[in-house]
Amino acid sequence: MLIVKKFGGTSVADKERILNVARRCKEEYDKGNEVVVVLSAMGKQTDVLLDMAKDINPNASKREMDMLLTTGEQTSVALMAMALDSMGVPAVSLNAFQVAMHTTSDYSNARLKRIDSERIRMELNQKRIVVITGFQGIDKYDNYTTLGRGGSDTTAVALAAALHADACEIYTDVDGVYTADPRIVKDARKLKEITYDEMLELASLGAGVLHNRSVEMAKKYGVQLVVRSSLNNNEGTIVKEETKMEKMLVSGVACDKNTARIAVIGLEDQPGVAFKLFNHLAHHNINVDIILQSVGRDGTKDISFTVSEDNADEAVEIIERHREGSLRCQKVDLDKNVAKVSVVGAGMMTNAGVAAKMFEALFDCGVNIKQIATSEIKVTVLIDQKYVEKAMEAVHDAFSLGDGK
Amino acid sequence: MLIVKKFGGTSVADKERILNVARRCKEEYDKGNEVVVVLSAMGKQTDVLLDMAKDINPNASKREMDMLLTTGEQTSVALMAMALDSMGVPAVSLNAFQVAMHTTSDYSNARLKRIDSERIRMELNQKRIVVITGFQGIDKYDNYTTLGRGGSDTTAVALAAALHADACEIYTDVDGVYTADPRIVKDARKLKEITYDEMLELASLGAGVLHNRSVEMAKKYGVQLVVRSSLNNNEGTIVKEETKMEKMLVSGVACDKNTARIAVIGLEDQPGVAFKLFNHLAHHNINVDIILQSVGRDGTKDISFTVSEDNADEAVEIIERHREGSLRCQKVDLDKNVAKVSVVGAGMMTNAGVAAKMFEALFDCGVNIKQIATSEIKVTVLIDQKYVEKAMEAVHDAFSLGDGK
Repeated sequence: MLIVKKFGGTSVADKERILNVARRCKEEYDKGNEVVVVLSAMGKQTDVLLDMAKDINPNASKREMDMLLTTGEQTSVALMAMALDSMGVPAVSLNAFQVAMHTTSDYSNARLKRIDSERIRMELNQKRIVVITGFQGIDKYDNYTTLGRGGSDTTAVALAAALHADACEIYTDVDGVYTADPRIVKDARKLKEITYDEMLELASLGAGVLHNRSVEMAKKYGVQLVVRSSLNNNEGTIVKEETKMEKMLVSGVACDKNTARIAVIGLEDQPGVAFKLFNHLAHHNINVDIILQSVGRDGTKDISFTVSEDNADEAVEIIERHREGSLRCQKVDLDKNVAKVSVVGAGMMTNAGVAAKMFEALFDCGVNIKQIATSEIKVTVLIDQKYVEKAMEAVHDAFSLGDGK
Repeated sequence: MLIVKKFGGTSVADKERILNVARRCKEEYDKGNEVVVVLSAMGKQTDVLLDMAKDINPNASKREMDMLLTTGEQTSVALMAMALDSMGVPAVSLNAFQVAMHTTSDYSNARLKRIDSERIRMELNQKRIVVITGFQGIDKYDNYTTLGRGGSDTTAVALAAALHADACEIYTDVDGVYTADPRIVKDARKLKEITYDEMLELASLGAGVLHNRSVEMAKKYGVQLVVRSSLNNNEGTIVKEETKMEKMLVSGVACDKNTARIAVIGLEDQPGVAFKLFNHLAHHNINVDIILQSVGRDGTKDISFTVSEDNADEAVEIIERHREGSLRCQKVDLDKNVAKVSVVGAGMMTNAGVAAKMFEALFDCGVNIKQIATSEIKVTVLIDQKYVEKAMEAVHDAFSLGDGK
C-alpha cells in the first residue's frame, strides 16, 4: 500500500511533536507500506517570516515573499527526515523543486499544474520514507510559488493522485468531521463518512477541517481522503464520492457567525438597480451571500444581503458613497448580530421536506428566520446571533444526528 | 561594469544591517553598474539550525543537514531583494537551484563544478540587482549541497569568474589585509595589494580574512579580489596575481597560537619509523606541520612536530597507544605553550637574507627559536607563546612594515 500522510504546522511545532509524527510514520512503514509524508512549516514559523518581511518592506513583492516562505517547509521536512533516521527508518526530504511540483506563476496563490513522480518513485523503491514540502511549488521559470490557504492539503491530495496512492490521510488537531461543532452542540457525533460535496459545503461554512481547493481536487481525481487526529489513533472521517451508509438526510449542522446583513431600503424600482449595487461591491472584491429582494411598492424596492463581517463596514461605505449618484435609496441598514445556520446533506437531493423540518425545529424553539438560501445539498437560514446555540441544538435534534439516538 | 559583492553573515544579521547593505548595493547600481550580490545566512542563523538538528538527531545525515542549512541563505537573499525593492531598486533573489550552481555530491564540503550564467544574465539584462545565495549548490541529482567553511567567498569568486565580472568585492568586518594583526602590532599597516600566494600563506596562518579555497579559485581563474569593510568606505586590499608596487621583501607578519608541539623522544633509529608515526596520525585525520628530526644517536632518534592545539591531546594518545607496538620510543612530550610566527612575501623568492633578518630581529629581542620551516614565500618560526607580541613587533619593525616608516 502507498499511503500519503499530511501533517499541519501544529503537528510539527517542536521537537516532541516532530518525533511523535515520525513515530506514526514509522509504524506505517513497519507494516510494510510505502509512506509519503507532506508537511507544513513548523508552528508559527510562517508568521515569523511574514513579520520579518513586513518589517523590511511592507509592500514586498509576492515573488520574494514566496521565496522567503518556502524556507519554512524545507526546514520541517529536513528535520523530519533526521527524526525518522534517528529511529532507524531511512528517509529523504524533498522540496518543490526536487520533486518537482509545477504550478502557475500566481505567486502566493498558485495552482498546481503537474507533479513529476519519478524522483519520489525512485526514493520509495529504495525503501525510504519520502518527506515532501507542502504548500509550495515552482513555476516554469524555476521561481518558487506558494499555493495559498490550505495549500499543504492540496499538495497531499495532488501527490496521492499523481502516485495513485491507496490512501490520503489528512492529520489535524480534531478527530474528524462532526455532525456539528462539538463546542456548541453537546452530543455532536463524528461522521464515519461524508461525500466531497457535503465536505465542500461544510468547508465554505467555516466548519472546514479541509480547505475547499483540496476537496475539489480530491473529487476531481477521485482521491479518497481520511481526516483524523495526529494526537490519537481514533478512526477519523472518510471523505469520498458516495457514502455506503444508509442515505442520511442530513450529515451535519454548521454555523457561521462571521456574517452581517445589509439592507438597502427604498431603492428606485427600475431595471439594473441590483446589477449596479452588486457591481460596485464586486469592484472592491466583496463577496455577497444570501440575497433577498422585496416586491416593489410605491415605485421603490428593498434589497438585503449578507457579507462577511470583516467586509461589512466597507460595503456600507461604498453604498453610501453612491447614494446620491447611481444608487438612489432611502437608507442603508447594517446588522452585525446575525449568524448563518445550515444543514448539509447529500440525501437532500432526493428527499423533500428537509427545509420544512428545519424551519419547524426553529419555530418550535422560538427562533425567528430572517432570510433563507438553499442549494441542492444545503439549507441555510439567517438568524439572530444570540440564538445560534439554541438553533443548532434544535436542528441537530430534529434530524436525530446526535450520539444519544 | 559588472560587480560581484559578497557580504558575510554579520553584515546581514538584522534589519538595519540588511538595509545598510542594500544601500551600498543601490549606490553601485545608481552608478550604472550591473550588480550581483552574494550573501551568507543571517548572523547566527546557521548555528540555530545546527542546534535544532542536533537536538533531534545528533548524527543527522549530511544530506539532510545541507537541506536544512540552505534555508539560511535563502532567507537572507529574499529579505535583501525586498530591502532593495523598498528603495526603488528592482531586484530578484536566486538560490543555488535557480542559478544553477552545480557541485559534487560531497555534502557539507562540496566543490563547485559549473555555474549556469543564463538566468543571471537574463535578470541583469532586465536591470535588476541579482541577489544570490552563497555557500550552497546542487548536485546532479538535484540534492542541495554546501561548500564548507568560507563557502560564500568561493561562491562569489566562482560567480565573478563565470560572469567575467570586472570586480569581485569581499565585504568583511575589517578594512582589508594588514601587515600584521592590528590588535597585536600597534603600527600595523593596511596593504594596498597582495598576491594570491601571499594571501594563501596568510590565510593558512589564521590571519585569513579569506578562506583558502576561494583564493585558490581566484588565482586559478584570475579573478581580482578586493577585501574591504561593510561598515565604512575605506579602500580595502586588492588580491591579485602580481602587485605593481615596489617589490616588497615581506608583505606581512602573521601568528598562529592554535598550535602545539609534540616531541617523540628515543625512537629506534630504523627506516620507516617516521612513516609509521605520521601514518597513524593521518589515519585519524590529524594534520602535521613543521617536522624536525634529530640526527640519530645511540641507535635512537627524536622526531618533533606541531599540530593544531585542538588535535594535540588526541595525537599524544594515539602515539602512546602504539608505544609498545609499532612505535617503540622512550617518551612523548607535549608543549601547548608555543606559537608560530611567520613572515610572508612574494619578494622573498628573489631575495636572499629574509630568514636571516628575521632570526636577527628575534635574537635582538631575546626570543628563542624552537623550530623553523620555510617555503618559497614564507619563513615560519616556532617560539614560546608568551613572546608572540614581542616577536611580532620586532619582526614587523625589522622589515619596516609599519605606518610610521
